[in-house]
Amino acid sequence: MGCITLTTDFGTSDHYVGVMKGVIHAIAPEVQVIDITHEVPAHGVLQAAFILRQIWNWYPPETVHLVVVDPGVGSQRRILLGRYGGQYVIAPDNGLISLVHHEVPIEGLQALENARFWLPVLSSTFHGRDIMAPVAAHLAQGHNPRDLGPTTDHLEIMQIAQPISDMHLVITGAVLYVDCFGNLVTNIRREDLARTCRRRIHAQVYVENKCVGPLRTCYGDVGVGKPLALVGSSDYLEISVNQGRAVDVLDCGVSAKVTVK
Amino acid sequence: MGCITLTTDFGTSDHYVGVMKGVIHAIAPEVQVIDITHEVPAHGVLQAAFILRQIWNWYPPETVHLVVVDPGVGSQRRILLGRYGGQYVIAPDNGLISLVHHEVPIEGLQALENARFWLPVLSSTFHGRDIMAPVAAHLAQGHNPRDLGPTTDHLEIMQIAQPISDMHLVITGAVLYVDCFGNLVTNIRREDLARTCRRRIHAQVYVENKCVGPLRTCYGDVGVGKPLALVGSSDYLEISVNQGRAVDVLDCGVSAKVTVK
Amino acid sequence: MGCITLTTDFGTSDHYVGVMKGVIHAIAPEVQVIDITHEVPAHGVLQAAFILRQIWNWYPPETVHLVVVDPGVGSQRRILLGRYGGQYVIAPDNGLISLVHHEVPIEGLQALENARFWLPVLSSTFHGRDIMAPVAAHLAQGHNPRDLGPTTDHLEIMQIAQPISDMHLVITGAVLYVDCFGNLVTNIRREDLARTCRRRIHAQVYVENKCVGPLRTCYGDVGVGKPLALVGSSDYLEISVNQGRAVDVLDCGVSAKVTVK
Repeated sequence: MGCITLTTDFGTSDHYVGVMKGVIHAIAPEVQVIDITHEVPAHGVLQAAFILRQIWNWYPPETVHLVVVDPGVGSQRRILLGRYGGQYVIAPDNGLISLVHHEVPIEGLQALENARFWLPVLSSTFHGRDIMAPVAAHLAQGHNPRDLGPTTDHLEIMQIAQPISDMHLVITGAVLYVDCFGNLVTNIRREDLARTCRRRIHAQVYVENKCVGPLRTCYGDVGVGKPLALVGSSDYLEISVNQGRAVDVLDCGVSAKVTVK
Repeated sequence: MGCITLTTDFGTSDHYVGVMKGVIHAIAPEVQVIDITHEVPAHGVLQAAFILRQIWNWYPPETVHLVVVDPGVGSQRRILLGRYGGQYVIAPDNGLISLVHHEVPIEGLQALENARFWLPVLSSTFHGRDIMAPVAAHLAQGHNPRDLGPTTDHLEIMQIAQPISDMHLVITGAVLYVDCFGNLVTNIRREDLARTCRRRIHAQVYVENKCVGPLRTCYGDVGVGKPLALVGSSDYLEISVNQGRAVDVLDCGVSAKVTVK
Repeated sequence: MGCITLTTDFGTSDHYVGVMKGVIHAIAPEVQVIDITHEVPAHGVLQAAFILRQIWNWYPPETVHLVVVDPGVGSQRRILLGRYGGQYVIAPDNGLISLVHHEVPIEGLQALENARFWLPVLSSTFHGRDIMAPVAAHLAQGHNPRDLGPTTDHLEIMQIAQPISDMHLVITGAVLYVDCFGNLVTNIRREDLARTCRRRIHAQVYVENKCVGPLRTCYGDVGVGKPLALVGSSDYLEISVNQGRAVDVLDCGVSAKVTVK
């Protein structure tokens, strides 16, 4: 019994996700379909890329991660199957795989062009249903990925700001994602901090020049309603507020400058 | 392993859906329960009928589609089991099955009156839990539908406006559903267009007398923020805005008049 | 094939729930993971305790109910495994199990301290992923609960107002929960009413001194938009409005005083 995860911007109030699940189950009745989220903001390629990066490597080998955020549906953009760490990602070629691709070596990349694995009739607005869902179902049933389309070596990569470290032990990064608790997840990773902050005990974290103190280890290290910086559960530096919303308390969001010095 | 889909107006913040899933799994531990949506507007029989029509025929044979939008719960309204295309629909008899019923021949209709398949104690406000969930579970496990209650030949049918074509090749229809992207899905189907618009290349689409141009094939055919008409993924004429919300841009919703001429 | 239910305050727009599902499936690929809700208000221990109480006993034996509402994550609060009615509850020791604990005899209680069943590296902010999900997965696969940590006999219990009956047959209780339909669920149970209201036909129900009439049996017993009192599907006295929202019509919420006299 295989496993397919779904990450889309389709919302949960319409029939779109239910249709994709029907297509999958009609081909692969035993497969488990797991909702990651369908609340990616419409056309939110960066947010979906972030969510995919966060979830993919917790899943067992051979899992198929289907990500449908597809503003170019109906145009000539390709649909890709990438293999990373023994798992599969199926997504339109618009940058969705960028963050996973940055982190681990790719083990295979196919353009999903073999129409034999698609639905027989293709719409121009719902390739999640017509191409991606049936291909994912065939793959989860153990079909050879090489049959699904030609190997390719080109993949769209999003330009994502990388944190910069200078010799005076200052790291400058940015907010990459705001979660539903209002936490600000930055692009600064645990290893960036470890590499730069030898005297970490003295390092202070600034968000748009407002100091939120040194690195903490849990929310309770500061009073209720107070901001803090810690390395979050996914090994990124995060700015939070104890029992509150950093995005509101600090009044900033994606792209806000974050400095550790 | 059978498959049950769930479409309700219960929302996802309370325990109601979780209780129904518990009832199903206690009877049929192996069955897959698939959430279609729980965000049908409260008492939104038309919206649920539309969503059911959109999803049902993508599922494998013997799937049980459970639709619980039930403003009449506790009254004398019946609960029905309809069979269409080798699949089952369980719903209160309030019009929920209308759109499926209009499209395909019915293969069987039972009133779910055999209390042997219900929970032993009946509430007056939650027949989704007490009657529909346990019956669906027994059915998904392969129980004979004829045991579940007497055959009937009466079913409530919603009156849904049908598009009208006149001899001058004008089709007049209406918006049937607004999805979460703000697309306006009309009651005009691909075959209505094919039948009437022989000179389709010249046809223009109007929403409440505002022209949105000829039929297009994909969103990218017009500029960002511009409205367009196309035959959507479910073969209905839809009015959309490229990377925008037609419902806001055109300022109209369900029942708005749509004309093709 | 075991069954794990998930109730959290993580929302459904981020990766948190998807990560927990990945951890579970990587350990127990065959287990069914069932979403109860992820929309518990942030840190809403009472609401989650209520939802758990509503759903747990509908599930089959050996089900694992995982409840992650954990404002104390990273502090010294313990994580517990309680056994009730042949089922398991895993939750931080912050009162989440209180309502279940009040209703049925406990059959076992462990502190989940055996790190052999946790993820190898522990974060300070996501014990749902690092401790609770993997332990739940091992348990759903049939692992002996006694291996998961030492037996304990201490459990945090929330103080929840109990309804008071006086000799003149007046019951005074309070609103415990407001559901997404705006129904006010009180802490007065069917048996409280049965015990006190011998002359039930004359009993009138008051919400903050506003009379909503006698006990009814279904919504349709009053006109559309009118308030009513009935014993709801979970055997609590509820205040509703026929096809409307009691919380708005009566302008009151959790803790509002409810009297039956």
